[in-house]
Amino acid sequence: MFVVLVYDVNASKDARISKICKPYLLHIQNSVFMGDITLGNLRILLDKLKGEIDRESEVLDIFILRSRKTVRRITIGESRVRHENVI
Amino acid sequence: MFVVLVYDVNASKDARISKICKPYLLHIQNSVFMGDITLGNLRILLDKLKGEIDRESEVLDIFILRSRKTVRRITIGESRVRHENVI
Repeated sequence: MFVVLVYDVNASKDARISKICKPYLLHIQNSVFMGDITLGNLRILLDKLKGEIDRESEVLDIFILRSRKTVRRITIGESRVRHENVI
Repeated sequence: MFVVLVYDVNASKDARISKICKPYLLHIQNSVFMGDITLGNLRILLDKLKGEIDRESEVLDIFILRSRKTVRRITIGESRVRHENVI
Protein backbone atom coordinates (compact mmCIF):
# COMPACT_ATOMS: atom_id res chain seq x y z
CA MET A 1 0.00 0.00 0.00
CA PHE A 2 0.99 3.64 -0.44
CA VAL A 3 0.77 6.25 2.30
CA VAL A 4 1.12 10.00 2.81
CA LEU A 5 1.95 10.87 6.41
CA VAL A 6 1.69 14.44 7.73
CA TYR A 7 2.13 15.70 11.28
CA ASP A 8 1.93 18.87 13.32
CA VAL A 9 3.84 18.41 16.56
CA ASN A 10 5.73 20.50 19.06
CA ALA A 11 8.92 21.81 17.40
CA SER A 12 11.06 20.06 20.02
CA LYS A 13 9.62 16.70 18.90
CA ASP A 14 9.96 17.22 15.12
CA ALA A 15 13.35 15.52 14.81
CA ARG A 16 12.26 12.50 16.86
CA ILE A 17 9.10 11.89 14.79
CA SER A 18 11.14 12.32 11.62
CA LYS A 19 13.73 9.80 12.87
CA ILE A 20 10.99 7.25 13.53
CA CYS A 21 9.48 7.66 10.05
CA LYS A 22 12.71 7.70 8.00
CA PRO A 23 13.37 3.94 7.95
CA TYR A 24 9.89 3.35 6.54
CA LEU A 25 9.03 6.27 4.27
CA LEU A 26 10.51 9.02 2.10
CA HIS A 27 10.89 12.43 3.67
CA ILE A 28 9.49 14.92 1.11
CA GLN A 29 8.69 18.04 3.11
CA ASN A 30 9.35 19.35 6.60
CA SER A 31 6.70 17.20 8.32
CA VAL A 32 5.55 15.11 5.39
CA PHE A 33 6.51 11.56 4.43
CA MET A 34 5.25 9.33 1.68
CA GLY A 35 5.93 5.92 0.18
CA ASP A 36 5.07 2.30 -0.27
CA ILE A 37 4.79 0.30 2.94
CA THR A 38 3.59 -3.15 3.94
CA LEU A 39 0.68 -3.56 6.35
CA GLY A 40 3.07 -5.09 8.87
CA ASN A 41 5.47 -2.16 8.75
CA LEU A 42 2.61 0.32 8.85
CA ARG A 43 1.39 -1.28 12.09
CA ILE A 44 4.88 -1.12 13.59
CA LEU A 45 5.27 2.52 12.52
CA LEU A 46 1.84 3.45 13.89
CA ASP A 47 2.61 1.79 17.23
CA LYS A 48 5.86 3.74 17.54
CA LEU A 49 4.16 7.03 16.60
CA LYS A 50 1.16 6.52 18.92
CA GLY A 51 3.56 6.52 21.83
CA GLU A 52 4.98 9.90 20.79
CA ILE A 53 1.98 12.07 19.89
CA ASP A 54 0.39 14.22 22.60
CA ARG A 55 -3.24 13.61 21.74
CA GLU A 56 -4.38 16.89 23.25
CA SER A 57 -2.15 19.26 21.34
CA GLU A 58 -0.50 17.38 18.49
CA VAL A 59 -1.79 15.56 15.42
CA LEU A 60 -0.60 13.06 12.86
CA ASP A 61 -2.61 12.04 9.81
CA ILE A 62 -1.88 9.06 7.59
CA PHE A 63 -3.63 8.76 4.25
CA ILE A 64 -3.59 5.15 3.10
CA LEU A 65 -4.08 4.20 -0.52
CA ARG A 66 -4.19 0.77 -2.06
CA SER A 67 -1.26 1.61 -4.35
CA ARG A 68 0.74 4.55 -5.69
CA LYS A 69 -1.00 3.94 -9.01
CA THR A 70 -4.16 5.47 -7.55
CA VAL A 71 -2.54 8.82 -6.81
CA ARG A 72 -1.00 11.58 -8.86
CA ARG A 73 1.38 14.03 -7.22
CA ILE A 74 1.93 17.60 -8.40
CA THR A 75 4.83 19.49 -6.83
CA ILE A 76 5.32 23.26 -7.05
CA GLY A 77 8.70 24.50 -5.89
CA GLU A 78 11.60 22.79 -4.24
CA SER A 79 11.59 20.89 -0.98
CA ARG A 80 14.21 21.89 1.59
CA VAL A 81 14.41 18.18 2.36
CA ARG A 82 17.15 16.98 0.05
CA HIS A 83 16.19 13.42 -0.94
CA GLU A 84 12.84 13.38 -2.63
CA ASN A 85 11.25 11.23 -5.25
CA VAL A 86 8.61 12.05 -7.83
CA ILE A 87 5.73 9.65 -8.47
CA MET B 1 -11.66 14.05 -7.32
CA PHE B 2 -10.16 14.08 -3.83
CA VAL B 3 -6.93 15.85 -2.93
CA VAL B 4 -4.48 16.19 -0.04
CA LEU B 5 -2.50 19.43 -0.22
CA VAL B 6 0.60 20.02 1.91
CA TYR B 7 3.01 22.93 1.85
CA ASP B 8 6.21 24.15 3.43
CA VAL B 9 6.54 27.89 2.91
CA ASN B 10 8.11 30.88 4.63
CA ALA B 11 6.24 31.51 7.90
CA SER B 12 5.30 35.01 6.75
CA LYS B 13 3.41 33.48 3.80
CA ASP B 14 1.55 30.75 5.73
CA ALA B 15 -1.61 32.77 6.33
CA ARG B 16 -1.82 33.89 2.69
CA ILE B 17 -1.50 30.34 1.31
CA SER B 18 -4.05 29.14 3.83
CA LYS B 19 -6.46 31.93 2.83
CA ILE B 20 -6.17 30.92 -0.83
CA CYS B 21 -6.90 27.24 -0.05
CA LYS B 22 -9.77 27.71 2.41
CA PRO B 23 -12.56 28.35 -0.11
CA TYR B 24 -11.71 25.11 -1.90
CA LEU B 25 -10.55 22.61 0.71
CA LEU B 26 -10.80 21.68 4.40
CA HIS B 27 -8.01 22.85 6.66
CA ILE B 28 -7.01 19.82 8.78
CA GLN B 29 -3.53 20.64 10.01
CA ASN B 30 -1.24 23.64 10.12
CA SER B 31 -0.20 23.44 6.46
CA VAL B 32 -2.40 20.61 5.29
CA PHE B 33 -5.70 20.74 3.42
CA MET B 34 -7.85 17.99 2.02
CA GLY B 35 -11.17 17.49 0.29
CA ASP B 36 -13.23 16.88 -2.79
CA ILE B 37 -12.63 19.32 -5.63
CA THR B 38 -13.62 19.60 -9.28
CA LEU B 39 -10.96 19.63 -11.98
CA GLY B 40 -11.95 23.21 -12.82
CA ASN B 41 -11.52 24.41 -9.24
CA LEU B 42 -8.28 22.50 -8.89
CA ARG B 43 -6.90 24.34 -11.92
CA ILE B 44 -7.99 27.71 -10.51
CA LEU B 45 -6.47 26.86 -7.12
CA LEU B 46 -3.21 25.67 -8.70
CA ASP B 47 -2.93 28.85 -10.77
CA LYS B 48 -3.38 31.00 -7.66
CA LEU B 49 -0.83 28.97 -5.70
CA LYS B 50 1.77 28.90 -8.49
CA GLY B 51 1.97 32.66 -8.26
CA GLU B 52 2.74 32.50 -4.54
CA ILE B 53 5.32 29.73 -4.13
CA ASP B 54 9.01 30.69 -4.29
CA ARG B 55 10.24 27.78 -6.35
CA GLU B 56 13.75 27.98 -4.98
CA SER B 57 12.98 27.73 -1.29
CA GLU B 58 9.35 26.71 -0.83
CA VAL B 59 7.32 23.67 -1.82
CA LEU B 60 3.73 22.62 -2.20
CA ASP B 61 2.61 19.07 -2.94
CA ILE B 62 -0.85 18.05 -4.07
CA PHE B 63 -1.82 14.38 -4.01
CA ILE B 64 -4.73 13.80 -6.38
CA LEU B 65 -6.97 10.77 -6.05
CA ARG B 66 -9.90 9.76 -8.20
CA SER B 67 -12.22 9.78 -5.18
CA ARG B 68 -12.20 9.80 -1.40
CA LYS B 69 -13.36 6.20 -1.55
CA THR B 70 -9.84 5.20 -2.57
CA VAL B 71 -8.23 6.55 0.58
CA ARG B 72 -8.42 5.74 4.27
CA ARG B 73 -7.36 8.34 6.82
CA ILE B 74 -6.03 7.51 10.27
CA THR B 75 -5.65 10.41 12.70
CA ILE B 76 -3.67 10.29 15.93
CA GLY B 77 -4.19 13.24 18.25
CA GLU B 78 -6.06 16.48 17.87
CA SER B 79 -5.54 19.12 15.21
CA ARG B 80 -5.05 22.67 16.41
CA VAL B 81 -7.14 23.66 13.39
CA ARG B 82 -10.69 23.70 14.72
CA HIS B 83 -12.90 22.62 11.80
CA GLU B 84 -11.91 19.20 10.67
CA ASN B 85 -13.77 16.34 9.09
CA VAL B 86 -13.08 12.64 9.28
CA ILE B 87 -13.32 10.50 6.14
